[in-house]
Amino acid sequence: MKGFFRVQTPEELYKKLDRFKALSSEKVNIDDSLHRVLSEDIISPINLPEFRRSTVDGFALKAKDTFGASEKNPAILRLIGEIPMGQLSDIEAKDGEAVKVATGGMVPKGTDAVEMVEYTEWVDSHTLHAFKTLSPLENVIQVGEDVKAGEVVLYKGHLIRPQDIGLMAGIGKTNVHVYLRPRVAIISSGDEIVPIENVPSPGEVRDINRYTIVSMVKETGGIPLFLGIAKDRFDALKEKIELGLRESDMVVITGGSSVGSLDLTGEVLQIFPGTEILGHGVSIRPGKPTLLADINGKPFLGLPGHPVSAMVIFHFFGKPILKILSGLSREGIWHQIKVKAKASRNIPSVPGREDYVRVRLEEREGTLWAHPIFGKSGAISNLVNANGLIRIGINEEGLEEGEEAEAILL
Amino acid sequence: MKGFFRVQTPEELYKKLDRFKALSSEKVNIDDSLHRVLSEDIISPINLPEFRRSTVDGFALKAKDTFGASEKNPAILRLIGEIPMGQLSDIEAKDGEAVKVATGGMVPKGTDAVEMVEYTEWVDSHTLHAFKTLSPLENVIQVGEDVKAGEVVLYKGHLIRPQDIGLMAGIGKTNVHVYLRPRVAIISSGDEIVPIENVPSPGEVRDINRYTIVSMVKETGGIPLFLGIAKDRFDALKEKIELGLRESDMVVITGGSSVGSLDLTGEVLQIFPGTEILGHGVSIRPGKPTLLADINGKPFLGLPGHPVSAMVIFHFFGKPILKILSGLSREGIWHQIKVKAKASRNIPSVPGREDYVRVRLEEREGTLWAHPIFGKSGAISNLVNANGLIRIGINEEGLEEGEEAEAILL
Repeated sequence: MKGFFRVQTPEELYKKLDRFKALSSEKVNIDDSLHRVLSEDIISPINLPEFRRSTVDGFALKAKDTFGASEKNPAILRLIGEIPMGQLSDIEAKDGEAVKVATGGMVPKGTDAVEMVEYTEWVDSHTLHAFKTLSPLENVIQVGEDVKAGEVVLYKGHLIRPQDIGLMAGIGKTNVHVYLRPRVAIISSGDEIVPIENVPSPGEVRDINRYTIVSMVKETGGIPLFLGIAKDRFDALKEKIELGLRESDMVVITGGSSVGSLDLTGEVLQIFPGTEILGHGVSIRPGKPTLLADINGKPFLGLPGHPVSAMVIFHFFGKPILKILSGLSREGIWHQIKVKAKASRNIPSVPGREDYVRVRLEEREGTLWAHPIFGKSGAISNLVNANGLIRIGINEEGLEEGEEAEAILL
Repeated sequence: MKGFFRVQTPEELYKKLDRFKALSSEKVNIDDSLHRVLSEDIISPINLPEFRRSTVDGFALKAKDTFGASEKNPAILRLIGEIPMGQLSDIEAKDGEAVKVATGGMVPKGTDAVEMVEYTEWVDSHTLHAFKTLSPLENVIQVGEDVKAGEVVLYKGHLIRPQDIGLMAGIGKTNVHVYLRPRVAIISSGDEIVPIENVPSPGEVRDINRYTIVSMVKETGGIPLFLGIAKDRFDALKEKIELGLRESDMVVITGGSSVGSLDLTGEVLQIFPGTEILGHGVSIRPGKPTLLADINGKPFLGLPGHPVSAMVIFHFFGKPILKILSGLSREGIWHQIKVKAKASRNIPSVPGREDYVRVRLEEREGTLWAHPIFGKSGAISNLVNANGLIRIGINEEGLEEGEEAEAILL
């Protein structure tokens, strides 16, 4: 296949990701479920709240007893007791009676509203003046008003946030089924690449990609397994890829810097039964030499050797694949936080590729400005100085100063 | 101090956070440094790249030998060898000579530019035609062009991202000093609160706040230590708070639902020498009953008992305090991702408080719409259905349908 490949658009490649499937699932304590993905729908077995609760500190009473009450003409009520927090109370109020209640406390039988303490005055220990007319249910949260028994409160494929754990806690769900975290084998390749502990000899460079890709896998919820550096030779690549396929759910290799090195990787893949090359080359800049394959259902991603290109491609292809394996819903997979920013100067681009320009986003008087960081794609310092990427579409020639574009946050 | 406090604006309270200081630091492997905060400036000991590298696959030559070359009139060069990747080569090119080089390979002595392979043709094994005129340094990345020896590449107070670890790898920095992660003691209080494994009796509710606050501490880089549920009694609160102050760098308590319960907490704090109450009550909705104290330099935050209020207040006060302890730079502490969204319907608000309305953000044809989720602040399902908060300023009366406002992502 050397040299024989057609560069595809990102959209063409994205469509081919549908074939990959979520991993199986496991049961975890909700304490360990943060940022995991639900593999079950969560149905509440109970109403929330389970009893009528007051939303204020005040006095529970019948709303009708306050009709017409005002500061000059208060309603006069008989105070018959207090609701203790956290305890069952059998107090029942009759017409003209009030019961002291704290925020979150049970609203007693016979009452249907709570007068806030600020609108009351005690005349003596048994007599209360209420100055505000209430409607029925005012300051009362009813049984099931938050969650109803039998309701689906969270859906399969949802990424679990703090508030979701709170809701599960509230309905007594202590354990939850979530998808397994994908194990991702990461291989660096290239004859010039050396471990970072080494002092590189002339012609050698340190292995940056190992660290950036391992970190991006962690950020996306995967478990990285670094398999070491392979020389650009068939057998060396074969051995590492074989190990990766055996030990993990996805294999990522960063190429030696040359285009030819990903060609060699493509040849190695052919020896694994069930390999289907989905793409070899994508019209994104930086990052064109990208290799995507399906090896018996396992995704294989070959990234360019340039650190910046490797990060950009991993962002656009590695992350969505990982999210698919993690079981995220479609919306969860493709959702990206985007902001709108104005170009602080002209940003040229060559049509025919989606161009992702590294930018420094800076807010000035309510406008977000994107300052382009120019530089060759091998320069890792560009990405360190950037906090965003501006997308210039495949058919666009660039942005003019002041023109607005979509930015992705880095 | 019961009842004696003045509600402060968020800005008044924010100003008081300056007194808190970053924790001490530790040395970690860069593999473990993701999302930690640098406690040292990183200075590069070397140039990056350390040798002149080609940014393309092609032929290194003297640019002047290609002057005037075109498709019809190629420059004719003598091919004298190839640069092997990762190895030192002493090839030196003279006028009219070219050397084969791969992307990332060393650009040999005597040459100053690289002709891309696409613009060349081999006439015989020793003769090359080059069809494109090059300028000096074209397709060459020079020594130190990415990073210069002695340059500060990352600053103290910076939150470490994947690309930052990549840069440290590139300059051979294997270990790095970072600030300690803050340990945060979390206490739930309230007579009605029970562990979630329990089946609540009438009047009791499950402890939601434990789970939401623990998760938010994790998301902000802290280490949560849950100390259990304290009854609303002086001694019970004192015992837990004492333990929290001893074992952690910050103490967070979620109140019983009533205002009175935070008053009791305030009284308990007075027995610890060096306690200074910084605020009791903040003009934010939801979340007004908030207690902020400095206990001998350790921050203490009392949150409302309502789960939604507790999360909102932790977001606006707990997170910045944690970030200060984590050593983040000022910019890192106060930076929040904000997006602009339009109200999908009228959203009323009462002036006098900063109002944070839970919204569901939804993109439709390039516009981000905010659908308000109304409901009482105790309803955790509101926060589950929300993915953003819209801010309505302290002096505003609400938003009209179609009006634009700032949203914070949840």
